[in-house]
Amino acid sequence: MQEKTLERLSIYRRLARRLQEENVERVFSHDLARMARITASLVRRDLMDLRVQGRPQHGYPVAGLVAAIDEVLDAPTPQNVALVGLGQLGRALLSYYIDRPHLRITAAFDVDPLKVGRLVHGVRCHDLAELAPVVRDQGITLAIVAVPAAQAHSVARVLCAAGVRGILNFAPVRLHVPEGVFVEDLDFTVSLEKLAFLVREGL
Amino acid sequence: MQEKTLERLSIYRRLARRLQEENVERVFSHDLARMARITASLVRRDLMDLRVQGRPQHGYPVAGLVAAIDEVLDAPTPQNVALVGLGQLGRALLSYYIDRPHLRITAAFDVDPLKVGRLVHGVRCHDLAELAPVVRDQGITLAIVAVPAAQAHSVARVLCAAGVRGILNFAPVRLHVPEGVFVEDLDFTVSLEKLAFLVREGL
Repeated sequence: MQEKTLERLSIYRRLARRLQEENVERVFSHDLARMARITASLVRRDLMDLRVQGRPQHGYPVAGLVAAIDEVLDAPTPQNVALVGLGQLGRALLSYYIDRPHLRITAAFDVDPLKVGRLVHGVRCHDLAELAPVVRDQGITLAIVAVPAAQAHSVARVLCAAGVRGILNFAPVRLHVPEGVFVEDLDFTVSLEKLAFLVREGL
Repeated sequence: MQEKTLERLSIYRRLARRLQEENVERVFSHDLARMARITASLVRRDLMDLRVQGRPQHGYPVAGLVAAIDEVLDAPTPQNVALVGLGQLGRALLSYYIDRPHLRITAAFDVDPLKVGRLVHGVRCHDLAELAPVVRDQGITLAIVAVPAAQAHSVARVLCAAGVRGILNFAPVRLHVPEGVFVEDLDFTVSLEKLAFLVREGL
């Protein structure tokens, strides 16, 4: 499955869950398309691939849609996630991610002795030096990196050596990782600079 | 210029600035390519488009590279940016963005009376109700949205009505904006769910 498709499924599911909260039972592809800011034909193609019951003319059952996407996106058992860096951004991420049932941050890491050993939003902060054993003990394969640029490379090296296979990177650097490790960069500066250019040039 | 090209230019510039700090005077396309995790031919094509002096065989002057990218990415005068939402994420973003000379957050907005009127990292927090006049007074055309999902749509409406043309959106919703307004979504959940899938399936 393509990365862009996975991103759309994640978006459809969030929209469908909101419809469920509002007790909406059926949804049309053009409604999903409008909410997701894409074309209805792309929505229909994605849902056909998922084999969601329902037809374009009658709409799709919202509950069935959520269940079908759950089956693709959710692991059979919850996946544990490590958070490295408990600065302002790290703490914000921790409070944001705390309620995901299938992807949960189970361990945080920092080098600050004032943070190590404490519970932050219910998650234990460990010394960065203990990363490898904690990651192995908890079967962690995913990590969020929220450390300054200067530390990001060495943190990524330690994470990969400990068996982490996917890194969501908030540090403003491109990480170098071994073959088979996935990195997703969320780069605020790159996004804002691009946006500034587009607005200025009125493209 | 394509969005992906703009993103790469932003990355090259950051890399080149680091080389400057290390007093490196020339850089080869394959070095930039390795650091940016892309191909050297793509780097060379981008730099040719920029008309950076230098040749692949002899490397490019680092200072010339930075200057050439400055000319594309930086506005002649600094662009003012509004930040809406001063929760944990908003404060983290404020401390992160505070040092950009060409893109500076000059106004923050929140609804919390404990925050309104205060200076946070040197930036004044205004009442959300004052958004339109403040945005107009400061000539703000870019905004960062860091409010909860439920508030994001109405905040986007107010921003667009006040003349904002580009929104960096951290709220987990797709915003609906008028024609001619650019939105860049930084969606943590979508990125993490995608990464979790890729790791699990070992793609």
